[in-house]
Amino acid sequence: MISIGIIGGTGYTGVELLRLLARHPHAKLTVITSRSEAGKAVADLFPNLRGKVSLDFTAPNTHAYQDCDVVFFATPNGTAMQSVRELLAAGIKVIDLAADFRLRDPATWETWYAIPHVCQDLLSEAVYGLPEINRQAIRTARLVANPGCYPTAVQLGWLALLEAGLIDPGSLIADCKSGVSGAGRKASVPILQAESTENFKAYNVGGHRHWPEIKQQLALFTDKPVHLTFVPHLVPMIRGIHATLYARTTASVEELHAALTQRFATEPFVDVLPLGGHPETRTVRGVNTCRLAVHQPHGQGTAIVLAVIDNLVKGAAGQAIQNMNLMFGLDEDCGLNDVALLP
Amino acid sequence: MISIGIIGGTGYTGVELLRLLARHPHAKLTVITSRSEAGKAVADLFPNLRGKVSLDFTAPNTHAYQDCDVVFFATPNGTAMQSVRELLAAGIKVIDLAADFRLRDPATWETWYAIPHVCQDLLSEAVYGLPEINRQAIRTARLVANPGCYPTAVQLGWLALLEAGLIDPGSLIADCKSGVSGAGRKASVPILQAESTENFKAYNVGGHRHWPEIKQQLALFTDKPVHLTFVPHLVPMIRGIHATLYARTTASVEELHAALTQRFATEPFVDVLPLGGHPETRTVRGVNTCRLAVHQPHGQGTAIVLAVIDNLVKGAAGQAIQNMNLMFGLDEDCGLNDVALLP
Amino acid sequence: MISIGIIGGTGYTGVELLRLLARHPHAKLTVITSRSEAGKAVADLFPNLRGKVSLDFTAPNTHAYQDCDVVFFATPNGTAMQSVRELLAAGIKVIDLAADFRLRDPATWETWYAIPHVCQDLLSEAVYGLPEINRQAIRTARLVANPGCYPTAVQLGWLALLEAGLIDPGSLIADCKSGVSGAGRKASVPILQAESTENFKAYNVGGHRHWPEIKQQLALFTDKPVHLTFVPHLVPMIRGIHATLYARTTASVEELHAALTQRFATEPFVDVLPLGGHPETRTVRGVNTCRLAVHQPHGQGTAIVLAVIDNLVKGAAGQAIQNMNLMFGLDEDCGLNDVALLP
Amino acid sequence: MISIGIIGGTGYTGVELLRLLARHPHAKLTVITSRSEAGKAVADLFPNLRGKVSLDFTAPNTHAYQDCDVVFFATPNGTAMQSVRELLAAGIKVIDLAADFRLRDPATWETWYAIPHVCQDLLSEAVYGLPEINRQAIRTARLVANPGCYPTAVQLGWLALLEAGLIDPGSLIADCKSGVSGAGRKASVPILQAESTENFKAYNVGGHRHWPEIKQQLALFTDKPVHLTFVPHLVPMIRGIHATLYARTTASVEELHAALTQRFATEPFVDVLPLGGHPETRTVRGVNTCRLAVHQPHGQGTAIVLAVIDNLVKGAAGQAIQNMNLMFGLDEDCGLNDVALLP
Repeated sequence: MISIGIIGGTGYTGVELLRLLARHPHAKLTVITSRSEAGKAVADLFPNLRGKVSLDFTAPNTHAYQDCDVVFFATPNGTAMQSVRELLAAGIKVIDLAADFRLRDPATWETWYAIPHVCQDLLSEAVYGLPEINRQAIRTARLVANPGCYPTAVQLGWLALLEAGLIDPGSLIADCKSGVSGAGRKASVPILQAESTENFKAYNVGGHRHWPEIKQQLALFTDKPVHLTFVPHLVPMIRGIHATLYARTTASVEELHAALTQRFATEPFVDVLPLGGHPETRTVRGVNTCRLAVHQPHGQGTAIVLAVIDNLVKGAAGQAIQNMNLMFGLDEDCGLNDVALLP
Repeated sequence: MISIGIIGGTGYTGVELLRLLARHPHAKLTVITSRSEAGKAVADLFPNLRGKVSLDFTAPNTHAYQDCDVVFFATPNGTAMQSVRELLAAGIKVIDLAADFRLRDPATWETWYAIPHVCQDLLSEAVYGLPEINRQAIRTARLVANPGCYPTAVQLGWLALLEAGLIDPGSLIADCKSGVSGAGRKASVPILQAESTENFKAYNVGGHRHWPEIKQQLALFTDKPVHLTFVPHLVPMIRGIHATLYARTTASVEELHAALTQRFATEPFVDVLPLGGHPETRTVRGVNTCRLAVHQPHGQGTAIVLAVIDNLVKGAAGQAIQNMNLMFGLDEDCGLNDVALLP
Repeated sequence: MISIGIIGGTGYTGVELLRLLARHPHAKLTVITSRSEAGKAVADLFPNLRGKVSLDFTAPNTHAYQDCDVVFFATPNGTAMQSVRELLAAGIKVIDLAADFRLRDPATWETWYAIPHVCQDLLSEAVYGLPEINRQAIRTARLVANPGCYPTAVQLGWLALLEAGLIDPGSLIADCKSGVSGAGRKASVPILQAESTENFKAYNVGGHRHWPEIKQQLALFTDKPVHLTFVPHLVPMIRGIHATLYARTTASVEELHAALTQRFATEPFVDVLPLGGHPETRTVRGVNTCRLAVHQPHGQGTAIVLAVIDNLVKGAAGQAIQNMNLMFGLDEDCGLNDVALLP
Repeated sequence: MISIGIIGGTGYTGVELLRLLARHPHAKLTVITSRSEAGKAVADLFPNLRGKVSLDFTAPNTHAYQDCDVVFFATPNGTAMQSVRELLAAGIKVIDLAADFRLRDPATWETWYAIPHVCQDLLSEAVYGLPEINRQAIRTARLVANPGCYPTAVQLGWLALLEAGLIDPGSLIADCKSGVSGAGRKASVPILQAESTENFKAYNVGGHRHWPEIKQQLALFTDKPVHLTFVPHLVPMIRGIHATLYARTTASVEELHAALTQRFATEPFVDVLPLGGHPETRTVRGVNTCRLAVHQPHGQGTAIVLAVIDNLVKGAAGQAIQNMNLMFGLDEDCGLNDVALLP
């Protein structure tokens, strides 16, 4: 059994880690810390875990994790970098679900997150935890930077077509839509039910923190310069991301589709729909699958990829466990074989 | 492995059976029939099952089920009674998720369902599939009548207090609320999203088919006459039933609570909240748990039980699998240990 | 034109007052105060008011209201009582949408609101602003206590039957359901979209502040002792209250229905459905109507009244304007003739 | 008073016409026809109209409209063309809310709607009813083709920038999102609440009927060739369209914003947000306003316009009444001055 610690498990990525780990056949939840909820039973905060998780939250401290094989950070950005060095020194592997180790360039980090990076020496060691591109490196990593939710959907959508040279990297437009759980479990007026349901809006059109992450990653899949426009929107639903991805192409839709199916033929968590398909976010609710489709309407030279994930699973906790499985030599899909809850 | 047939698996109880059976360690889905969808891949109708269920729907016919150990009817009311006799004769066990074998009295059936009962001789053999009251009989049953969704929630809410004689059976008011999946997966204007969301209403206040079922069952838990008022309401959410149950009592809230906790102490799927609790439907979303709480406000002599279930799981497909587990000597919770999806 | 001040207009009752007053033919919005938003344009906080309301929020101070004919308090409980005396002395009429002047008995107030009542001398002068029972008194009132949302629905539901002596006041059970706007526009985790949608729960079953208000009022409609059980629930929708009201009766459903239609025959804002009807909250969305139906299922002696209102209109801002219309000699329905937004 | 007939008023555009006309100071609803609902009271089908509309549905026939000044077709595509000629001959003006007279080219019509066009001679007379571009022609029109919902949002979003030559017409991508009322009030499984809530998907990516309409119209605003990609999506909310519009530009965001504000400075129903704004669909719920914003992130040469409307108001019934006001010499905003319902 892998002994597991979770730091900051009071948000949605935290409770999702708990849900998935509670039934993982090789995981043993050892400690979960929270400054604000220390002393409270986990199942009192999240009643869906009654009878499933018997731990209490404990206050974070340096000795709390000493029996852990791996620690997940489900904390705000800028938290993990404060203590990762110490954990690694103690032989504990780390998976950070926040952004601290996603950007390779500390200057870019500081521009977008407005926090000095105090752990720059580990940036080059950290492995970007998207198994579909980094599987081997993840297997031997001590420190994994779990990708952002939008970046996961956008990369999986464009990966095959960029690698195959079928779309123009200078023409990328990612129109992305996310359910409100992406905004986190924090008291905030704009995501109250009476505010955000029966409503649709774009946000942060002027600039969103996932833009540099997506751009950094897409650049790895092509030799040409990447020009990326990224617009996030808030969807009145709890879970799910839908990325609608536009790029210029000279390929036929059959060529585009073939590139997708070939690239992901053996991927356990990427499912390419038949030609003409429209993936729906609900078909991945609660599961680690990314579902894709591709169109090229009116023979007009625009490749349109549709990509859906559950932002809390493949976009956060599920992908983190997929990474853990790789890091500990387990089957990659261990504990991640649920069927999406539909309806 | 238990070889399983599903008849009529195109509705919500059907897809829920498929979701739960796809991961059941001792179940093998052998055949699924549908008159309207014959020839279509199950995963084309329900894309959440892509990669999980590889069967096609086949047309119903007498030989289709010959290799099955058990057949689930997920059909409209009045369908199962047409062919149960034949299946039992072939040594196949039957679990009917519709109402055909729930009511002991065929005259009551015909009053409420307006269909002559063509299989009255099996009514006395059929076992009412609520394990919390009929566990032993279910273990040896050939034919199980899976309870209705509202009746499951109401019985589990009042069972302990009626058995203990702590409430007045002549004063029962069940104010029940259900998510729209309870209305089924059929094209119908009143349950369109644009009609039923952002709305709340009662329906069938003059009389609902679950009233005689609830009344028949509650009468088994007490020697006194049962007087039951039952009002169903439609809640703008997909899954979940919340029963708010009122009865006169002379007991204190502590006595009421003790009766609940004692009665259900060893039940795997009934969870009684601490005093003062308010169960939420989302804490049982996708799982087979019934969660209960009891109040007695203002010392006024009214016992209020709050009961929540997922109408498609403990109220339908999950309970059916719980019954199957009992009928085949498996652990009662086999394949039913999921954690509720929250948020 | 009536010159109007609004105190504390940053919540949902505030923006609803603004929406309704912006088009009222005899209302002129003169001042709106908010400690937290002073200096901000009203239309910046509520973009639906762009081009409709040009005022800025100003800081509350004693001279702000000097040009007003009437001031609405859309403030937290316990605020209005601090300054009502001063306003009345200056000849300004007051309509309080909070609870400060709803309860006649200051001891009951202090029990339920945990704030000493600093304006007890005005309690006897304050008129309870339910026009259907207090129309004459409201016309000459200086100080109106606008009823609570649940109390409005429950009183209008039972008023006719209690006055007619057709139900037993010792047997009253009010099972009430409210949309989340009833919880207000404040940052709070339990009413985040990701928490309160796709969920149903009861709350405050042990005791809710509207219980003493409802009980006080129902006692006015009968000579017999009132025994009231009241359970509120949260519905995953924005607006609307549905009260399901149970009482013992010896009357037939036709007698009950006749009592309702007669009592409300000339009421502009109470609509009684034909026998067999089920009122839906969406049919009153955005309007000041209360819609009622009555049932007596199975001839069993239980009268069931179904009552729906929009909690922000007839349950708050609309009723306040109805009261204002009466206080200033306008047509009672002036500015309140909208058609409900459906779908 | 203008005497009004509505043909086919049982869908969402029909009930929305009724809601808006019920309070229009110069409109008198004379007749409303429906084949399926003939004989039924309008208020029985749409209870929000109880006490507001006293008409019954009547069967459609040639004499039904003889007392009408104007007839609105709220019918399926291909219906209006069957009887418009006769109505015009009788001196009755016609506003068609369906697509019959939107496309100038009958061949394009037949390609996309798969119905022969039986009224081609009137195509050149019909005026495309977008007042922001055709105000003068609408004033004298006998036959107005009310624009589609998506085309309204997209045209208002790009109109000013195309006219000003600030964006490249060869680079247009319209990523559009609509609430489910856009799919109409018809029994259909994919728009059941249990199917379409908690879900997001694109649809008809291969080709949607509004694509040729948008393309035809945009070509009027520029001399250069228009290259348009259009992808519609379904949003889990009842009302609202959000268009996210991408185009290449060499202009600064200030220039883009200035072009918008100047073009729409005197338009009563177009509201341009300050720089940096994000319009929300709820701010136009129930009203005839189109709200716009423009961004140009990262100085990258992509102009992003955000446009929101209520699909049933500015996208259908409201715009139809705006056209009627123009055709009958009324104030353009007569009866259309509501404030959006928020929350």
